[in-house]
Amino acid sequence: MTAAPAPLPAARTAAVVWVNGARQPAGAAHLSALDRGFTLADGVFETVRVYGGTAFRLDAHLDRLARAAAALEIALPADVRATALAAVAEGPASASLRITLSRGPGAGGAAPPPVAGPPTVVVAVAPLAPFPPSLYEHGLAAHVASGRRNERAMTAGLKTLSYTDATAALVEARRAGADEAIFLDTRDRCSEAASSNLFAWDGATLLTPPLSCGALPGITRGAVLALAAARGVPADERPFGLDELVAAREAFLTSSLRELAPLVRVDGRALGDGRPGPVTRELAAAYRDLVRAECAA
Amino acid sequence: MTAAPAPLPAARTAAVVWVNGARQPAGAAHLSALDRGFTLADGVFETVRVYGGTAFRLDAHLDRLARAAAALEIALPADVRATALAAVAEGPASASLRITLSRGPGAGGAAPPPVAGPPTVVVAVAPLAPFPPSLYEHGLAAHVASGRRNERAMTAGLKTLSYTDATAALVEARRAGADEAIFLDTRDRCSEAASSNLFAWDGATLLTPPLSCGALPGITRGAVLALAAARGVPADERPFGLDELVAAREAFLTSSLRELAPLVRVDGRALGDGRPGPVTRELAAAYRDLVRAECAA
Repeated sequence: MTAAPAPLPAARTAAVVWVNGARQPAGAAHLSALDRGFTLADGVFETVRVYGGTAFRLDAHLDRLARAAAALEIALPADVRATALAAVAEGPASASLRITLSRGPGAGGAAPPPVAGPPTVVVAVAPLAPFPPSLYEHGLAAHVASGRRNERAMTAGLKTLSYTDATAALVEARRAGADEAIFLDTRDRCSEAASSNLFAWDGATLLTPPLSCGALPGITRGAVLALAAARGVPADERPFGLDELVAAREAFLTSSLRELAPLVRVDGRALGDGRPGPVTRELAAAYRDLVRAECAA
Repeated sequence: MTAAPAPLPAARTAAVVWVNGARQPAGAAHLSALDRGFTLADGVFETVRVYGGTAFRLDAHLDRLARAAAALEIALPADVRATALAAVAEGPASASLRITLSRGPGAGGAAPPPVAGPPTVVVAVAPLAPFPPSLYEHGLAAHVASGRRNERAMTAGLKTLSYTDATAALVEARRAGADEAIFLDTRDRCSEAASSNLFAWDGATLLTPPLSCGALPGITRGAVLALAAARGVPADERPFGLDELVAAREAFLTSSLRELAPLVRVDGRALGDGRPGPVTRELAAAYRDLVRAECAA
């Protein structure tokens, strides 16, 4: 009794999907249900923003992907970059590019098979999801997650598929009426947001949690630190607690898709005057200039 | 340029696969690459052992699945139990049953869509993967993972799809020449193994880490605690460190598939005389009796 595959719910936003080097219909079934990316989050990924048809800092993302794959001993096929470029060329000019690499289909059990099978590579390009128009004007309100980021996890610092905690924190934040979630690490230090890095301006120095607090080595985070250095804005990667965050004059979150998103409220308390501040605006404008220079966007 | 779907690598062991209530060819493509179970580990699962065609304690597993789904606000379709029973009836008499529930296909971003789409349910039955014949006779050697379990994670105690750390710990254990990985929690207390609960016998009391140390509320763990109580074996759910584990006279790991697996070595140090001990053997035999009584296996 084997039925014909049931139609899948339409993928809501993907425009272009490539699986293992071949373009597929976006609404098709693409993967085995036994893919270890699905059964065990056994894989890694990158999300890249596309400006005017150019993927910003694609090679930095691919380098990070390669490092994470090597740490998990997942083979990274040589054609991933070419597939990403092909998919971007077929997608909208303003888009998000997601590259996902899993260990591929496999028997049950968390241990990888002794002899590796072929991995799975998915490249998906989608029109950039619209942000609330007020995001950059009004800023975000964050909820402090009840659970902690584990700065000593096996996979700390790697962008693996294990995002359940980020989703759970955003579900909790939504219940609390907030837009975002901020994680503390297991030693009560600020770590990052659900899927963004965190910056705070204390009036004299731009602070961001070091990777030892469980922060991911964000590509945008790195770009912002370089921009701050180039502009003479003092910056420091050092641990800080929630007390320092709520006492900050300004704060913002960074991610490839949202760029620099002002953070104006934490657990209902306004940061500074509760509005995006001048340092945030200056660095956001500088980041936009950087994007324009590199993507001719 | 849309190619016909490429053939997927054959699923190595699955005999029966149901997706969203319909049986599918095991080697087919079943899922959208945009399924949030694949992109974000946004889902939960259960693994159940089938003895003589009967899934042992299926309802306890389904209860745990329902609790985890509710915590993540993922709808659990009403027909999951019926699908599981149908799949088990079609599979081998001695099998593993895996039930996976994800939030289904969705746009990128860790936040669940404001309006939930249909979830994805996969039920897969596979012949029970063979264990090394010497497992129960000689016991397992474990490596202590370099990373920690997070007992204060958002999803602590929930069996979510985020198993990357377990896989990474087993990769590390294999490099160290060990069969298994033991996790400490962030406060240096024993938590559990990669995907099994941990028990130690100190000569007078059967110890197992409490859930507050990041241990999953295992179905087999619960059965073993009940068997110990019924047989007058003193047992205590209390925190203990690695020093107590390596000083134990006996230890074993529990999971639905492996039942009670003797643990005889930790980081190269023998526990007791380095062989499975009498308390482990007694409880393993009692567990087998329990299975026989409930499954007529």
